[in-house]
Amino acid sequence: MVFVARSDLENLCSTLFQVLGIPKNEADDSAHILVAADARGIASHGVGRIRRYANGIKAGLLKGGIAPALLHKTPLSFVVDAEGAMGLSLSKESMEKVIAIAKEYGIGVCSIRNSNHFGIAGFYAEMAAKQDMIGIAMTNTAALGVPTFARKAMFGTNPIAFAAPGLDGKMFSLDMATTTVTRGKVEVYEREGQTLPPGLAVGVNGLSTRDPIAFLDDTLHLRGGGLLPLGGEGEHQGGYKGYGLAVMVDILTALTSGGAFGEAVKDSEITSARVCHFLMALRLDIFRPSEDFKRDMSRMLDALTSLTPIEGVDRIYYAGLKEHEAEAQAAVKGVPLSPAVWDALKTIADELGVPIPSVRKEQ
Amino acid sequence: MVFVARSDLENLCSTLFQVLGIPKNEADDSAHILVAADARGIASHGVGRIRRYANGIKAGLLKGGIAPALLHKTPLSFVVDAEGAMGLSLSKESMEKVIAIAKEYGIGVCSIRNSNHFGIAGFYAEMAAKQDMIGIAMTNTAALGVPTFARKAMFGTNPIAFAAPGLDGKMFSLDMATTTVTRGKVEVYEREGQTLPPGLAVGVNGLSTRDPIAFLDDTLHLRGGGLLPLGGEGEHQGGYKGYGLAVMVDILTALTSGGAFGEAVKDSEITSARVCHFLMALRLDIFRPSEDFKRDMSRMLDALTSLTPIEGVDRIYYAGLKEHEAEAQAAVKGVPLSPAVWDALKTIADELGVPIPSVRKEQ
Repeated sequence: MVFVARSDLENLCSTLFQVLGIPKNEADDSAHILVAADARGIASHGVGRIRRYANGIKAGLLKGGIAPALLHKTPLSFVVDAEGAMGLSLSKESMEKVIAIAKEYGIGVCSIRNSNHFGIAGFYAEMAAKQDMIGIAMTNTAALGVPTFARKAMFGTNPIAFAAPGLDGKMFSLDMATTTVTRGKVEVYEREGQTLPPGLAVGVNGLSTRDPIAFLDDTLHLRGGGLLPLGGEGEHQGGYKGYGLAVMVDILTALTSGGAFGEAVKDSEITSARVCHFLMALRLDIFRPSEDFKRDMSRMLDALTSLTPIEGVDRIYYAGLKEHEAEAQAAVKGVPLSPAVWDALKTIADELGVPIPSVRKEQ
Repeated sequence: MVFVARSDLENLCSTLFQVLGIPKNEADDSAHILVAADARGIASHGVGRIRRYANGIKAGLLKGGIAPALLHKTPLSFVVDAEGAMGLSLSKESMEKVIAIAKEYGIGVCSIRNSNHFGIAGFYAEMAAKQDMIGIAMTNTAALGVPTFARKAMFGTNPIAFAAPGLDGKMFSLDMATTTVTRGKVEVYEREGQTLPPGLAVGVNGLSTRDPIAFLDDTLHLRGGGLLPLGGEGEHQGGYKGYGLAVMVDILTALTSGGAFGEAVKDSEITSARVCHFLMALRLDIFRPSEDFKRDMSRMLDALTSLTPIEGVDRIYYAGLKEHEAEAQAAVKGVPLSPAVWDALKTIADELGVPIPSVRKEQ
């Protein structure tokens, strides 16, 4: 792995965005959120995506300096058309507004249509959790998930993020795709020359497939097949539940904002799909004193981490713990990037004439 | 099966509750919600539970005529201590208040602690959906679900219900346990003398078990083991996601209300555990005109049901469709009850001296 000081990596990525024409404040926010993903060990949503961002910006599909159109506003809610704005910085700005609404009224909510990839959903949920609120963030994504017993994709990996605080900076932070795995995971099986375990994906006939190469080719060319919803194939392990959760995300993100949903959400050849987001914050003290809530939360999280694991497993985690530990380590050791991601980033920097920071390499 | 006219079955159950000392309005509401479960084909949450209700009422653990203590109130939210009230009627009354808040402000929310079994969560979510709102209902339940890689139960089957309307009475209505299956499903495998498929439950050593008899005995006596979260065993099919969703339900229901959570939620020897609920409603038109939302919803639901299913499967469903079709059929043919449930109900009626309505039997 290559380790880059977090601020160096943020500066590099922000500079790349700025050279591509994104205003500084949007570039800074976008870089910060992408780097946060790598710092937490979620490389699939990190700086490795900058090539697709650059492609989208160059093609005019992804735009900086957009003032999104306000479609609707009530004291508790607002809905915007992002008009192709940077999903990352727009979502951060929107969550700040949602939090401001919640500060005043107790609950704030917004939905956004026609946006772009917003990185890790958990980032926005945690913004609320850091302010003594429950935070919720969702996005729809390009259709890749197949309804129970169907043959073609009708929803995305549609992640749900939910965060709430404990004492002393502890936090429960769930950020999960509603499909069993993401496309990136299937690509790992392909790269490693392994067959897919059952329950992850179906082929064009709608039945479980073990072949990652055929799967990736069939879904790329929209021939059919796709990822299975959380709960897997058929009904016996609850696949209809993941299917239901994915549709719920489409409802909250796209049906509330009037954006694209279902199979209409498609990646373009060069960049990600125009997608819809949903952001919500609920102040803890609309229920009970925040300190009481947070004390119980810490008690719950401590009870979970003190459980005896099964033979051969070291620890029991709760949602977000691994990622927060990784982030703490990245603050000391630098943000870890795979050599492939680092090389790709250097190539983009070379193309754009941006200087590259020094890094530390480790086997 | 035995088929009972819905109003006859509701009257019978309400009368039983009233003879047991529950005031008429609470008895009527409770009967209505239990019968709704049977009408929708969710027998696990229907009138078959009346024996446990009767036991709880007789033991003074479940009480009628309670005026729950209001713990906290803001314009958008309220929190109550149910003090052992009937979970069914209290939750209906509370959802009515939540809906009234949403009518005025756009969003309403409540949490309830120290309550009892509230039947099908979907009933409350649908109350909101019928009034052009998004409805959400959750409850925690007696600890029976095991965190990923752990050996003992630390959360319940903790269901999530989410409902939103389309045009002409169509509705998306998800109501799902966050464990792969419920205990009732394991009991079916036991009754039919079958081994459990993998991915449903773990034994006292934390590893997948195929033996429903040992599982039911070990969990009943709190020796360890339990149901696997949605996504199954370990991490490869996303079991940590179901685990995260179950904890999210504990947070929204119990941490917001100051009630019991995690392994502290225990069924008593004769009746169900004291549990916590979370109810929420969001008016559609805080986002966009309700008719626009509902038109898109119908378009989405139609797209899902027109999909080509895999070989050997007749139709593609969306969440709630099977249950609503069953309910429509029950309005014509009567509410279907298994002979065992009907006999048990007759026994209770005999014990309490309540007359039994006529029924129709069918093989």
